[in-house]
Order: sequence, then C-alpha cells, then structure tokens
Amino acid sequence: MSFESLWADQSAIGRNPETGGYTRGGWTPTEREATHWFLDQCAARGLAVESDGIGNLIAWWGASDGPGVVTGSHLDSVIDGGAFDGPLGVVSALAAIDRLRAEGFEPSVPLGVGAFVEEEGSRFGMPCLGSRVAAGVLSAEKALALTDRAGVPLALALEQAGIDPAGVGPSPLLQRMGTFVELHVEQGRGLTAPVGVASSIWPHGRFRFTFGGEANHAGTTLMEDRHDPMLTYAMTALAANKQARLAGARATFGRISVEPNGTNAVPSQVTAWLDARAADTATLELLLAAITKQATERAERDGTTLEVTPESVSPIVNFPTGLRDRLVGVLDGAPVLPTGAGHDAGVFSDAGIPTAMLFVRNPTGISHSPAEYAEQDDCLAGVEALAAVLKDLAK
Amino acid sequence: MSFESLWADQSAIGRNPETGGYTRGGWTPTEREATHWFLDQCAARGLAVESDGIGNLIAWWGASDGPGVVTGSHLDSVIDGGAFDGPLGVVSALAAIDRLRAEGFEPSVPLGVGAFVEEEGSRFGMPCLGSRVAAGVLSAEKALALTDRAGVPLALALEQAGIDPAGVGPSPLLQRMGTFVELHVEQGRGLTAPVGVASSIWPHGRFRFTFGGEANHAGTTLMEDRHDPMLTYAMTALAANKQARLAGARATFGRISVEPNGTNAVPSQVTAWLDARAADTATLELLLAAITKQATERAERDGTTLEVTPESVSPIVNFPTGLRDRLVGVLDGAPVLPTGAGHDAGVFSDAGIPTAMLFVRNPTGISHSPAEYAEQDDCLAGVEALAAVLKDLAK
Repeated sequence: MSFESLWADQSAIGRNPETGGYTRGGWTPTEREATHWFLDQCAARGLAVESDGIGNLIAWWGASDGPGVVTGSHLDSVIDGGAFDGPLGVVSALAAIDRLRAEGFEPSVPLGVGAFVEEEGSRFGMPCLGSRVAAGVLSAEKALALTDRAGVPLALALEQAGIDPAGVGPSPLLQRMGTFVELHVEQGRGLTAPVGVASSIWPHGRFRFTFGGEANHAGTTLMEDRHDPMLTYAMTALAANKQARLAGARATFGRISVEPNGTNAVPSQVTAWLDARAADTATLELLLAAITKQATERAERDGTTLEVTPESVSPIVNFPTGLRDRLVGVLDGAPVLPTGAGHDAGVFSDAGIPTAMLFVRNPTGISHSPAEYAEQDDCLAGVEALAAVLKDLAK
Repeated sequence: MSFESLWADQSAIGRNPETGGYTRGGWTPTEREATHWFLDQCAARGLAVESDGIGNLIAWWGASDGPGVVTGSHLDSVIDGGAFDGPLGVVSALAAIDRLRAEGFEPSVPLGVGAFVEEEGSRFGMPCLGSRVAAGVLSAEKALALTDRAGVPLALALEQAGIDPAGVGPSPLLQRMGTFVELHVEQGRGLTAPVGVASSIWPHGRFRFTFGGEANHAGTTLMEDRHDPMLTYAMTALAANKQARLAGARATFGRISVEPNGTNAVPSQVTAWLDARAADTATLELLLAAITKQATERAERDGTTLEVTPESVSPIVNFPTGLRDRLVGVLDGAPVLPTGAGHDAGVFSDAGIPTAMLFVRNPTGISHSPAEYAEQDDCLAGVEALAAVLKDLAK
C-alpha cells in the first residue's frame, strides 16, 4: 500500500474539523481508534502482533522469536496536536515494510513495527509512559498511581481499553528489540535536508511550580494588602523566558491551574508547569536555578509561597555513534543533528538497546500544533531512507 | 430564634470540610439547600413567600399587598467563598424580624426579607444576575443565553431547580419594594466601628482579555521563533497590578483559561478576565486604558494578538443621601463609607428604589475566601442596627 493512501487513511482518525488538530491521549477513544487502525493494517499484512501489559505493540514480519530490528513510533498526541508527531513514524514503518516486501527483500532477522503508548504524556502527565514502564525505569506502582486531569486512575483507563492493569510492568517485548530505529518529523527548523539522523536528545525537565497566596475579594482588598500568587507566577513566566534566551535553552509555562479561578477573587493558589530543556545538564540546572531564584525573590515581595517539584527529569541521551554513522553511511551523508524533543527512542537507548533516529524535515519548525506540517516529498524521502536503513540492518 | 442558632444552622449548609469554604453557585444543589433552609425558616414564622420568574424570593411579614420595607441579601457564594458574604444579610434579616416581633412591634407597612439569586455571578459569569433580570436591566433573552463553565444553559439550570424559564423577566416583586436595606459584611478593612452605612459603590468592570498566539513544541521551538500569548498575559497581569496601585484603584486577574494547556506546548491562546474598580468612572477608564496600552505594546513585541471585551461594566452607585442620613441618625452617627464590592442593593438603587446598605465590620478585610470572618459581637450589633432601622422605616 502506498504511503500516500496509508497517510490519508490514518490522518482522518480523530481530526478536529474546527482546529485541524488531534487530541489522542493514551487509551482515549480517538487514540484507541488509531490503534485499531494499526492492528487492522497489521492483520491485512499478516504481521504477528505482540502486546505488553500497558498496551505497547510490536507487529512482526518474519521469524516468531529471537531479537529483531524494530522501527515505529507512537499514535497518541498532545492536546490539539499536529498530524505528524508520532503517526508519521508508524505509517512510514508500514510503508517501508510494504516496499521491502514488494522488492522481494528477505530479512535475515525479524523486522518489527512498534506503536508505543502515551508517548506525549498528555493524559497522565508523564512523557514516554509506555516505554518507561516497558523499560522498567518507571515502576508499575508509580505508573498505576497516576491519574488524568479528570481524576481517572491509569488502572481504570486501562480497564476501559480492555487491558488488565495487573500486567503493567517491565515488558518482554524489549527482549526482542535487537535494534530500534524511530523515524519522526523534526520539530524545529534545524534540518534543511529532507532527512537527517539524530545525534542526541537534550536533557529535559518538567517542574511543577506551586504558588500559594491568600484568596480575597478583588474589589475591596487594597492592592497592598494582597498576597496574590498570580503576580508571582506572572513574573516567573517572564523570568523563565528571559533566562532561557540568555542560556540558549528552552523554558515554557504552557499549563496552569488557578484556585478558585473566579473573576472577582484574588487567587489562593496558582500551579504552573515549567518545561525546561538545554543542550547539556549543567545548562539545564543553571537555568532552573536562575528561574527559581527570581521566583523566590518575587514571592518574598508578594508575601506568597513557592514550592518547586520535579515531575520528570530526563538526562541527555547520546545515541550510539556506531549505529548513527552506519545510518549516515547508508543515507549518503545525511546531516546529523540533536533534538530538544523527548522520544521513546531515548528511553530505549538508555535501556541499552542500540537505537537511532531519523528525522523528516519540518519546513516551519511548528510542532505540537494543528499547523505542524511536512512536505509529501520529504515524507516519501523518509520512507525511502527508512527502508534503506532497515534493509541494511536486516540484511 | 436567636441570631446565634440561626447562624449555626445556616452556615453548616454546604461547608467544604477541607477548605472551610462554600461553593454555592446559583441553582446548584448547595445553593438550593440554603434556599430551602430559608423557605423553611419563613414557613416556621408564617411569612408569606413570593417568588419571581428567575427565583428571587421575598418573605412578607404583614399586609399582603402595597409597597413595604424589604431587607435581605443573597445565599449564593463565589467558588470556595466565606460564610458571611450574602448569608449574613439574610440571617440578620430573619433575626431582626424575630426581635421586632418579640418586642411586639407592629409595622405600619409590610416588612419583607429578600433572598436574591446568583448575586456573585460565580456560575453564569454575570454578577447580580437575579436583581439585574428583576430590574429589567438585563433582558430575559440575554440572561437565557448565558451558560455556565460546563456549558449548562441558564434555562436548563432553572428547569433542574424546578423553575420554568418562561417566567424569566422583569419582576413584579420590585413593585412592592418601597425601600430596600441590605446588610452585608464589610469586605475591606475600611470600617473600624462595628456597623457602618454605605455612601456609594465604586464603578466596576469585568473585561475579557483574549491573547492569541501560535501553539508550538516547548522543546524544539527557538525562543525567538515563538508567539507565546502566556508572556503577553504575564506582563499584562503585572501591569494591571502596577497601574491599580498608581491609581489608588483595584485591578485583578483571578481567572484564566489556557489553550491547549499542555506542559510541553507553547499555548495557542490565553483568556484572562480583568476585574477593575475605582472610586470614580474617570479613574476606572484611565486604569483600563493604561493596562490595555501596556498589553498592546507587549503583544506587538511577542507577535501575539489582543482583544479586550467588556463583559459587564457598572457605573458608580451613589445611594440616596436622605435615606443614608436617616440611617446614620438612627444609628447614633455610624460611620459612612464607600465599597469596592458590587451588591444587589446597587442594582435596586439604580432601578429607582430608595436603597441603603449597612456594613458589619470585617477585622481582617478578607472576603471571597474561607478565611472571611466577622466577630459575633459585631454580627449581633448588626442585627440590632438593622432592627432599629426597620423599626424606624416601618413605624
């Protein structure tokens, strides 16, 4: 089946006609619909699908045991995200397999297509949830303690998707991943060729900033009598932006929750989540320290309190240079670049699986947005590159 | 029945044991429970209750027609509000009636106890919703077009409370309000005597600030490539605080809504509500202009957009000086003070009903918060003052 028709098919699932975006949180109806589409595609190709206790999937072409070469990505999305982030890697994997079979290629090891759950963490707040649990870096106990914004525990979400939560834990699927290659749309403007190869993933932290103040009447409370946590937050959001610019790093407050969130009440509490990333761990730590310092000073001025809680901190991932150079060789000297975005590939690489990533050019650099876009010719170049890489690794 | 036992009874209804606060949006189960308590109290006293099409109530002691003297307040609350704001006026009214009856006082005109719905606007976003509709300053059409945050239309909320929405409109109850006196807890620290009399209500506006930007990936988008509406909002919140201080006015951003509100996405849109109040209309207009100017300048820098929409703007209410001075006379020269808080009394005054307000001291000035508090002795002084005023007005 051609990439074009696979893509048209898949990208129709759960598209919001108003925004053009996708909201596919892990185990939600729209994400399940995309997953069922994937299973149908695997069945149509006679691929044998293996799943693990949290719902990660690998569909195998070839021998039913022994380690193989796995490619793939994820089908979930951020809230109102774009079409490419995740699905491009899964659809390109199916298209590459179709291409290799049409060519009559016979792999010497099994080739697998993986779809890993809740990579974005948009539902349960933990990025790469499926791969982290599979790799045993997040315990079943901690994973099952997660709840979504509506208060639904992970166990219930799994049950509602027909998955027994008792099975959550390190995954046998990983024993069969001899090599992992994830194709992904680039998420910045750093790639000027159609296809590139990843060098590393920037270290990345999510920190919860809890600003505490005193609820009060917005009309009657003198400005000087207030302990308004919104002001402390506002200064912190501006400080984060400034410090990230100074450090050549990234800092974003994109999520906020206000109590009581009433028009005529000074808030009692503002909770805001800082997403911070930098090229190396030292820079990331200095960035967080600089933002926290300015926030703390402002909290003293405002008579508010501040608590900073790390929700997830991922160190730098340096993909193995041998595998990387092999891909560059196959792809006639494709450019090598780092990324600021986290990926399941980073989790698998940290777990000791030889891992590489291919990027497809993003002409605008826009991602995590309905406006995310890649040219069709670049997507086709991505499929061709992935097929060439799989052929080389499984020859 | 004593004020103390009435108060203990009423303030047990819907109290959140965790915060100590109350969330009684209009026509919600907790607000209905408080309303039923009020109806039971009226029945126990043999007061004849009249209601109007939106659910405002007046319970009459005395003749069944002709204009009378009405006191009372509201039973709804802000989200996680205090015990006193609203209920103190209703409970004090019942206690004052009990006191006058125990004394054997015979009013020459009917005395009414009113409870007006959705005064805070915490559910449908429109303060003084019940009194505005009753007075005809908010049309039935506009009122019925309101929806709460969950998307429930006012008509459905009314139906769920057993009220036919077809009756929403100007209220015949107002024909019988010859005079209105609202007792209310003071909401700032401006009152140092136990009881005071209102001079005016500051002009007050609620303005919706919609900051538009471009959703993007928090990890990969260069800081200089972003159009982040959170930054424009943050600067605007700080500007509002500064400008209000400079103007001796009040400006608060207490409510915010972020799209898509994901940790790893630069927001596409931030909507925030400005509550602004000042001693006079000119100051309020200058304050809004100064905040809007700074916000617009920052939006240009951030490459974001800004739209400012007034949701409700109330001009100054000057209570009639004759009635005010009569109350001051009855209360042995009680202090006279303005308030920054809106009240149904302001709507009724604007509607041409001779209206006055009594304030009970608030030692901390905290209001719209579970920490809102008034000393019991001051509450008892309030009941005594209200009884004296009613006796004078209905003698």
